[in-house]
Amino acid sequence: MLEALKQQVYEANMELPKRKLITYTWGNVSGIDRESGLFVIKPSGVDYDSLKPEDMVVMDLEGNKVEGRYNPSVDTATHIEIYKAFKEVGGIVHTHSPWAAAWAQAEREIPCYGTTQADYFYGKVPCCRVLTKEEIEGDYEKNQGLAIVELFEKEGLNPMYYPGVVCAHHGPFTWGKDADQAVYHAVVLEEVAKMSAWTELVNPQAVPAPQYMLDKHFLRKHGANAYYGQGDH
Amino acid sequence: MLEALKQQVYEANMELPKRKLITYTWGNVSGIDRESGLFVIKPSGVDYDSLKPEDMVVMDLEGNKVEGRYNPSVDTATHIEIYKAFKEVGGIVHTHSPWAAAWAQAEREIPCYGTTQADYFYGKVPCCRVLTKEEIEGDYEKNQGLAIVELFEKEGLNPMYYPGVVCAHHGPFTWGKDADQAVYHAVVLEEVAKMSAWTELVNPQAVPAPQYMLDKHFLRKHGANAYYGQGDH
Amino acid sequence: MLEALKQQVYEANMELPKRKLITYTWGNVSGIDRESGLFVIKPSGVDYDSLKPEDMVVMDLEGNKVEGRYNPSVDTATHIEIYKAFKEVGGIVHTHSPWAAAWAQAEREIPCYGTTQADYFYGKVPCCRVLTKEEIEGDYEKNQGLAIVELFEKEGLNPMYYPGVVCAHHGPFTWGKDADQAVYHAVVLEEVAKMSAWTELVNPQAVPAPQYMLDKHFLRKHGANAYYGQGDH
Amino acid sequence: MLEALKQQVYEANMELPKRKLITYTWGNVSGIDRESGLFVIKPSGVDYDSLKPEDMVVMDLEGNKVEGRYNPSVDTATHIEIYKAFKEVGGIVHTHSPWAAAWAQAEREIPCYGTTQADYFYGKVPCCRVLTKEEIEGDYEKNQGLAIVELFEKEGLNPMYYPGVVCAHHGPFTWGKDADQAVYHAVVLEEVAKMSAWTELVNPQAVPAPQYMLDKHFLRKHGANAYYGQGDH
Repeated sequence: MLEALKQQVYEANMELPKRKLITYTWGNVSGIDRESGLFVIKPSGVDYDSLKPEDMVVMDLEGNKVEGRYNPSVDTATHIEIYKAFKEVGGIVHTHSPWAAAWAQAEREIPCYGTTQADYFYGKVPCCRVLTKEEIEGDYEKNQGLAIVELFEKEGLNPMYYPGVVCAHHGPFTWGKDADQAVYHAVVLEEVAKMSAWTELVNPQAVPAPQYMLDKHFLRKHGANAYYGQGDH
Repeated sequence: MLEALKQQVYEANMELPKRKLITYTWGNVSGIDRESGLFVIKPSGVDYDSLKPEDMVVMDLEGNKVEGRYNPSVDTATHIEIYKAFKEVGGIVHTHSPWAAAWAQAEREIPCYGTTQADYFYGKVPCCRVLTKEEIEGDYEKNQGLAIVELFEKEGLNPMYYPGVVCAHHGPFTWGKDADQAVYHAVVLEEVAKMSAWTELVNPQAVPAPQYMLDKHFLRKHGANAYYGQGDH
Repeated sequence: MLEALKQQVYEANMELPKRKLITYTWGNVSGIDRESGLFVIKPSGVDYDSLKPEDMVVMDLEGNKVEGRYNPSVDTATHIEIYKAFKEVGGIVHTHSPWAAAWAQAEREIPCYGTTQADYFYGKVPCCRVLTKEEIEGDYEKNQGLAIVELFEKEGLNPMYYPGVVCAHHGPFTWGKDADQAVYHAVVLEEVAKMSAWTELVNPQAVPAPQYMLDKHFLRKHGANAYYGQGDH
Repeated sequence: MLEALKQQVYEANMELPKRKLITYTWGNVSGIDRESGLFVIKPSGVDYDSLKPEDMVVMDLEGNKVEGRYNPSVDTATHIEIYKAFKEVGGIVHTHSPWAAAWAQAEREIPCYGTTQADYFYGKVPCCRVLTKEEIEGDYEKNQGLAIVELFEKEGLNPMYYPGVVCAHHGPFTWGKDADQAVYHAVVLEEVAKMSAWTELVNPQAVPAPQYMLDKHFLRKHGANAYYGQGDH
């Protein structure tokens, strides 16, 4: 079942080591079929060297395994909450990519210092708060997902305009319209996390790009008046 | 038409991923034929993996497409203003290479801390100001080019002595006598942007190299008395 | 003798250049056979390019060479003290991997800023004190091992919960249940040493992850109640 | 003539791009035959991709070309002064490797923070002063060599115990008993330049390794009582 989606999610997972976003197996990608409500996710702890499309695990949004001989990624419950709350999201990535993880560990959102970020994020990359003791001792991975959703709701952020987050003392999650785009955003996030740290290194008083620059760059690629169809910048 | 130039511009574009200056398609190279007044530029948003010489787009300096099945890079209007104002320029590169972009995002020119930079830049790497709201909401890419030209005119900089610039909250443009040299300068710029940041990391009170050192290094390779013909340093 | 162990230790050694943990021959891996009390270690100064499984040196815990045409690594006496004191350790790695060495040279333990570290270390990475003049002029490599053991005893650290250490002005040692896991921990240590430095770069007031987060992450993978069997995070 | 030396110097030059010490042609290696007083050096400005052993240039210590169709590296006069003053030196390397160049541009000697450096340098990496206007406008490359020699004489440094230097606002020179060892020391220098910067990043109050540690590490590999014959550490 969902063979095309399995193939896509498999290939998206294989992009993680190729793009140097992960060490060992420290990451996972999923993709959802919104019609059936089923999603496909990387199995837990299988080496990338031996991973195959048929190893992908099919899950429903209640957390039941529908197909697959492996267990799904331990972060599955986080993916579920994101899929449930963000209806336009078609794919999700979690990594421990080091620059994004550094901002996460520093408990800082990433300011939007320039157009590289503004082409994909309509401003900052948000930072999700530290989970409470109760949240972590309880249904931890689910609560991580709920805290991400809470943040976007509280701040009124459109998840398609802010396609990622750094989670305090943990690492990044990114998403997109499908698994491919979610990986693309994971690459972008690591790149802008690096550039922003270097910007502050070079100028500790650096200021974010002005709002009208964000409007121009983000909105020429997204939304009703996009004129920037083929993707470079 | 302009098949040799298309081949050169194609090869120069392919140097960008090879030299690790770009992520995905975040860069473009052009080269001009001064006799005909036509220039050749990378198409917008085409992956480097599938890029071919015949995909290059031929443009005139009024911004009209003369040949090509793709749209030209969205930065085309910036290239045009540089070609129109800097008559000796034969090739232009734009990237988001991360160290150069960090100085751009920090709104800082790059001091000339040593001979690596002085062999190619007769001093600092200039930083182009933030564009105004009107400039960005208007003909943005053209206004970026005009702001670069304005900077060089205001400061009296010879563009062949300062073959590049970092644009505030955006990234670098470099140029040269042809597309190959423009790419060479893009590599140099990323390298010196990195080295200069590391110099300040190691010594926050670092001072630029003395003027007589710049005179020696730059002028032994450029200008009437150059004795340094084969290129190393 | 111990052919399977030699093969494993050989392969574990070859992981060091592959994982970019070493320059030239600046590292060594050993593995022990607890039944016979013999261990296998990389020979001193042999290039990785020409290293073969049969070059591995077999030693006893009194420091006698049991088999092998080369001398054992000069750090052999340090490995011996670790094997003698930490009975569950089955493999040991020493490198000069640069981020871990930076913390060692800075005489700082590495705070646990997030889950990447907490999945493998139950908190900080300890820092072993500078050896005294007498210790260094005496049986230096043995005394390095004794100082590591002293640190773990003094602080009451379980070596299987803290599978590595940075040694002041020197570099890291890591260990595990066998040579493979010791190398895995060397990779983890370099990664978290890098991430922690970047965390402090991005936020000089960064605080460690809360204890309940460590409890969750470390203990879900280790100890009696582990539910996290296949390894990702 | 000197075919074996040409081959060795050629191979040593080819190590520079392989070890990622250089960008384009920004480096050169030479090796000397002390019996004949002739040395072999990389030609100026020839790409590494097309470099061949027979392209190496044979020079005498008065700066005359003895054999070769290319011009010698423009840094030849610096190599000559080092060979003339440091009689045990058999090979010399110049690069613009970025971490070493950062210390050079920062006008700082590199403190000896640990054993990685102490295994090859008997303490700091010295920093050569900025040349005067007269020195640079005169016989620049020769004066660079004389300033290095002056520094070692003034500070009473044995060049075989301090096999390299960073030259203010320029970059590093390293040397050794032959061209191979000179390249080895260029790799070491770049590695310790990086590690030392990171040490200060992690701890701005970091202190150098104690003298007795240097004595142990350096002298176990060098001098009359060396017991550390095969090279790891």
